[in-house]
Amino acid sequence: MSRSSSDVAVLAHSGGPTPVINASLLGAVEEARLQREIAGFYGARFGISGILKDDFIDLFAQPTELLERVAQCPASALGSSRHEVTREDLTRVLHVFRARGVRYFFYTGGNGSMGTAMQLQEEGERQGFSLQIIGIPKTIDNDLLMTDHAPGYASTARFFAHAVRDIGADNASLPNQVEVIEVLGRNAGWLAASTTLAKTEPDDPPHLVYFPEARLPLDKLLDEVSCVFHRLGRCVVVVCEGQLDENGEPFGAEVRPGSRGSLAQNLGQRLALLISTRLQIRARSEKPGLLGRATSAYISKPDWDESRLCGRAAVQAAVAGYSGVMITLLRNSGPEYSVELGHAPLEKVAFAERLFPREWIKSDSTGVLPAFLDYATPLIGPIERQAELILNPPKETVD
Amino acid sequence: MSRSSSDVAVLAHSGGPTPVINASLLGAVEEARLQREIAGFYGARFGISGILKDDFIDLFAQPTELLERVAQCPASALGSSRHEVTREDLTRVLHVFRARGVRYFFYTGGNGSMGTAMQLQEEGERQGFSLQIIGIPKTIDNDLLMTDHAPGYASTARFFAHAVRDIGADNASLPNQVEVIEVLGRNAGWLAASTTLAKTEPDDPPHLVYFPEARLPLDKLLDEVSCVFHRLGRCVVVVCEGQLDENGEPFGAEVRPGSRGSLAQNLGQRLALLISTRLQIRARSEKPGLLGRATSAYISKPDWDESRLCGRAAVQAAVAGYSGVMITLLRNSGPEYSVELGHAPLEKVAFAERLFPREWIKSDSTGVLPAFLDYATPLIGPIERQAELILNPPKETVD
Repeated sequence: MSRSSSDVAVLAHSGGPTPVINASLLGAVEEARLQREIAGFYGARFGISGILKDDFIDLFAQPTELLERVAQCPASALGSSRHEVTREDLTRVLHVFRARGVRYFFYTGGNGSMGTAMQLQEEGERQGFSLQIIGIPKTIDNDLLMTDHAPGYASTARFFAHAVRDIGADNASLPNQVEVIEVLGRNAGWLAASTTLAKTEPDDPPHLVYFPEARLPLDKLLDEVSCVFHRLGRCVVVVCEGQLDENGEPFGAEVRPGSRGSLAQNLGQRLALLISTRLQIRARSEKPGLLGRATSAYISKPDWDESRLCGRAAVQAAVAGYSGVMITLLRNSGPEYSVELGHAPLEKVAFAERLFPREWIKSDSTGVLPAFLDYATPLIGPIERQAELILNPPKETVD
Repeated sequence: MSRSSSDVAVLAHSGGPTPVINASLLGAVEEARLQREIAGFYGARFGISGILKDDFIDLFAQPTELLERVAQCPASALGSSRHEVTREDLTRVLHVFRARGVRYFFYTGGNGSMGTAMQLQEEGERQGFSLQIIGIPKTIDNDLLMTDHAPGYASTARFFAHAVRDIGADNASLPNQVEVIEVLGRNAGWLAASTTLAKTEPDDPPHLVYFPEARLPLDKLLDEVSCVFHRLGRCVVVVCEGQLDENGEPFGAEVRPGSRGSLAQNLGQRLALLISTRLQIRARSEKPGLLGRATSAYISKPDWDESRLCGRAAVQAAVAGYSGVMITLLRNSGPEYSVELGHAPLEKVAFAERLFPREWIKSDSTGVLPAFLDYATPLIGPIERQAELILNPPKETVD
């Protein structure tokens, strides 16, 4: 197709990958191929770091069949970065963009990345550089404002819901043990909440779910675990990596050297140790950790589809003249789940976290209220209960 | 079908579940239904503990369709147990069996369980009780002697190989970090070895794989991690939960209270902490833990099929008059993978561990020799490499 302009587009990934981040990339490239305004489309290698180093790949040169296969794979196909952007970096980015003839910039990330995009927009305007910047939402944490949910959340949520179901079934078949399952999520409990989709019967796992939005006194945790364990002979506890105790500390867990704040490295393990020493109950912990965002086995179809649509919508918005906005997902009302795409100003999403709604949390730590299940089930899907034998005893008896 | 006898069979699970343990149960029930010698078939609830409490379910009363669905699910459908069997327990088991008219006992487990089966056999013979005992092999650790491999290993191995591939891809897309992945395996490195199936190109993860069969000096680990990290800017390390250092200690990790020996609870985390503090490299750890044996998403088809066949073969062997043996898998020679089923005396497998062959381990800690891949690939399957973009830069350059 002949191009009507020499304008170039750049797309970069930022922060942690999601299982569907490459579906947004596919959508953006598909759409850009249709737009005569976009003469070239470059992917930055390793996020903003790649832009700073003028390290790009040619996205229009990728075979469609390859892009489609890449879109099925988690981990960022372009490479991503957690580089903290300085004012000098912004100037360098604009310099590279100018030299490359870049007019459109697509930045796939969470609320911090949207903040960077906003700063770049402001710096570009200050320099009189006509650059259109569109944010593509992406976060497993689901903590972006202005969107019903964020691409990436539902697939990681689906992983953790299955993990809790499966480890819970293992725990039920070999009981007399407490299982602490550490899920991703530093400040927001959306992923922890999703594990309640594993629950069909009242005594199904998870038995206790804690939300990092509230501090958790250790004694409360121990009391609640003890209560479940003595009733059922087993207990599955879901806790976020970012959970803090009544003192705002991670229960004495080890804090990552150099980490911002007090994110623990071994919170689940620390809690299992406290449960086993204080309650004299056998306890262990599992930390699937990054596997929750890195595996393709539990990709949610709506999540993948929406991630791709967000990529397409970002290109459409840019060509239509929008700038300084992030693509959003707006849920339609009605009994059937459907979404429309919209956009929100970057300043409304930058550096802000959407926490899990307190009014959806059960006060007894056993999970969430139906409002969350109504919200989450169309995204994550129902989690099928495992088949179980019929427990009829044989007829004969023995003394 | 009319039964020619009143003899009853009992099947019990022992120890940790596997992803395919219920396929053996399906196979045993399918075969028992064909055998007129077996009038009733009971499943013990929670292993030997269920026998001691006379707590059984009627396996012939299970609908075939339900059994087939159950056979697709990990976790023990009957419930399992780690109860350490005493001499008094053996007497009680024989008492219950006599009262129930039990003539056939199928015990699904690993080498410790085969030891229990052997002791029960001896006690039965001492009491002149005509009880036929057949062991059904089951262990994710693959440490049973006399069998080419054990049902359960390949599926858990397949999980961990994918986990290393996927976490490795995440690590490659967001580098400057060391990832320590803790895999199951206390004394034997079969699962650790399986993660090397994720490697297609020389620099694919895992970059370093350690085997618990050899002590690992901390300095050697740090040197090797440093070397890989400074060459690639990333490093994926696979370590077994049972790895010990040069002093026979778990590197200062926390040891499970009440655990036999020195099995650490947080070995991967401990090593990540040592790497980050000693080498000043960002490091984290993931511990999928029991998820490796509890998820159905990575069940190996040959593993499932063979597990079912072992259940069938156990019933056939019992009816044919065998006792005091464990079913074994014997690999045929030739280019196409195939197995035949056999049996080995319980005393040849009881309480003995088959460690990973030292001659299959590369001396530089980077993995295994092709002999292992020849052994493992037919069981676990090739692990598909994730699709990657073509790294062509765009034509223009910038200063």
